[in-house]
Amino acid sequence: MSEATPLFVVGLGLIGGSLVRAATGHRAVTGWSPSEETRAAAARDGVAVADSLDGLLSTAADRDGLVVLAAPTTAFPQLLARVNAMAPTVRLTDVGSVKAPVQELAERLAPRTRFIGGHPMAGTASSGWEAGSAELFRGAAWVTTLTEDSDLDVWAEVATLAIEAGSRVVPAEPEAHDRSVARVSHLPHLLALALAQVGAEGGPLDLALAASSFADGTRVAGTRPDLIRAMCEGNREALVSAMDDALGILGVARGSLASTGSLQRITAAGHQGRADFDSREAGLEPAELSGEDMVEQLLAVGSSGGHVVSVDRDADGGVVARAFVALED
Amino acid sequence: MSEATPLFVVGLGLIGGSLVRAATGHRAVTGWSPSEETRAAAARDGVAVADSLDGLLSTAADRDGLVVLAAPTTAFPQLLARVNAMAPTVRLTDVGSVKAPVQELAERLAPRTRFIGGHPMAGTASSGWEAGSAELFRGAAWVTTLTEDSDLDVWAEVATLAIEAGSRVVPAEPEAHDRSVARVSHLPHLLALALAQVGAEGGPLDLALAASSFADGTRVAGTRPDLIRAMCEGNREALVSAMDDALGILGVARGSLASTGSLQRITAAGHQGRADFDSREAGLEPAELSGEDMVEQLLAVGSSGGHVVSVDRDADGGVVARAFVALED
Repeated sequence: MSEATPLFVVGLGLIGGSLVRAATGHRAVTGWSPSEETRAAAARDGVAVADSLDGLLSTAADRDGLVVLAAPTTAFPQLLARVNAMAPTVRLTDVGSVKAPVQELAERLAPRTRFIGGHPMAGTASSGWEAGSAELFRGAAWVTTLTEDSDLDVWAEVATLAIEAGSRVVPAEPEAHDRSVARVSHLPHLLALALAQVGAEGGPLDLALAASSFADGTRVAGTRPDLIRAMCEGNREALVSAMDDALGILGVARGSLASTGSLQRITAAGHQGRADFDSREAGLEPAELSGEDMVEQLLAVGSSGGHVVSVDRDADGGVVARAFVALED
Repeated sequence: MSEATPLFVVGLGLIGGSLVRAATGHRAVTGWSPSEETRAAAARDGVAVADSLDGLLSTAADRDGLVVLAAPTTAFPQLLARVNAMAPTVRLTDVGSVKAPVQELAERLAPRTRFIGGHPMAGTASSGWEAGSAELFRGAAWVTTLTEDSDLDVWAEVATLAIEAGSRVVPAEPEAHDRSVARVSHLPHLLALALAQVGAEGGPLDLALAASSFADGTRVAGTRPDLIRAMCEGNREALVSAMDDALGILGVARGSLASTGSLQRITAAGHQGRADFDSREAGLEPAELSGEDMVEQLLAVGSSGGHVVSVDRDADGGVVARAFVALED
């Protein structure tokens, strides 16, 4: 990457708009939004804005750029059809919150693109171009998905973009990503919603006595319902499985409390789980990755709880990455 | 209350020690702990400390004081037996996190005491005399329990103590308190524990991708397991019912997601529940309470989501309270 690959961002909402701002200064950036108003707002803020999606995509193809789909995943079929028409072999990534379905869509609708799925795990309650910030991704995990067919050069481009934005790059298989976010992101939303409903149905005394455990436990229930639904319903299969795990644990605890009066098992396991979360980075060690089996090495970084912190090229143009990784026990 | 009633605090841990500090300056305060080390530490900090429990209780009886049981509720049977022996008609309150069982114990083991149950809903992860702070109760709800037999004069003493400490006084029947805290305090702990276990069982990738929704949703899973168990297991019946409500909501959502793919119902109800929580004080209006049916009036304040902010006496010595209360729709 002696010369930074130009970036073409499709969608200028919170995530796309933040990405444009974060990448500016590191590389040439062009944006496009289906909203004329948003295009005008971005242009007023100094962003190079394409007049049309097809125009953006054909320029991206000409300049061998990296296209980022930063639109709702419901728009992906339509967008991928345009990519396939205008820039059929372009470097392509996305920022959608579910990865296996997007991988499948990309392979089906734009099969010749060099696609690497992405998911920057950052967001705020706000939305729209104005809400964007170059700092949004700082410190966040940015998942980059890999399969056996992945193009490592494009992975390196996407990882570099994420690192420029201040994120930790977490390589993962698309299905593994979806299973994980079901458990640690989508399930927390459903538990928060259920708790908020129980508290409110209890009436005013309940809400008057609710303190920090309730406030923290219901915080994400304040997220816009349509956003929660889009995120959770889009990851249906993995989320049903995560709910079953939670319902199983709670059901056993309920039975134990009712029959023997003991909550020993859930308190011990849950406390240990939180301790594991708090110490999740304690076992990570620096490592340098290179060579033929890079995809496997990168996936091992992610599945160990580690992340990539820099990406470079060796003398022969091969990808070299520095990472933090948990060594095997 | 022309002259402040002297206070006798049994137990000098986090809550008792904080209460001693908060009441100092407002009234005479004497403390006692079963630990000689704790008694010595409190004495070094300038607190009047009794040498023995019986000595503390007999002085409380002589001075017509207010005794506060600030010990673990597991010690209450033993403590109430001593109260019944040494100060059988004393003014008595407690700070236990469950109220109907304590009410029953007090009525059975110290039947002539003038007892008003209490629960200051404040705490930290720390424990012991050194962890105490005069500011611990500021802004917290302090539940005071009332039954048809309650002595309003003693209620006024307990309420005054809570207000001195900076708390909002929430009158409630003992059983209503236990139902509410099961839903808004104990249930959140169990959901946090279940979520933490699901996340940790998913493995290192899950924990690496866990962000603020998981961090917030599992925070109270970091509480000491023995404290969670004591609190939750002590409120068994109400907590089983609260768990059934949560399991019902989650089970329906799981079924809907698996069958139709929709999470419409749980997102709408949960989002509304959180909005109700955020606006819970919006409908409260100031009111002055006095007269024959004070217990009913006070309970109506609590069940409307309101609280008492000051307590005084009228010319005839009757209790007068100012409160915020939600008017009937």
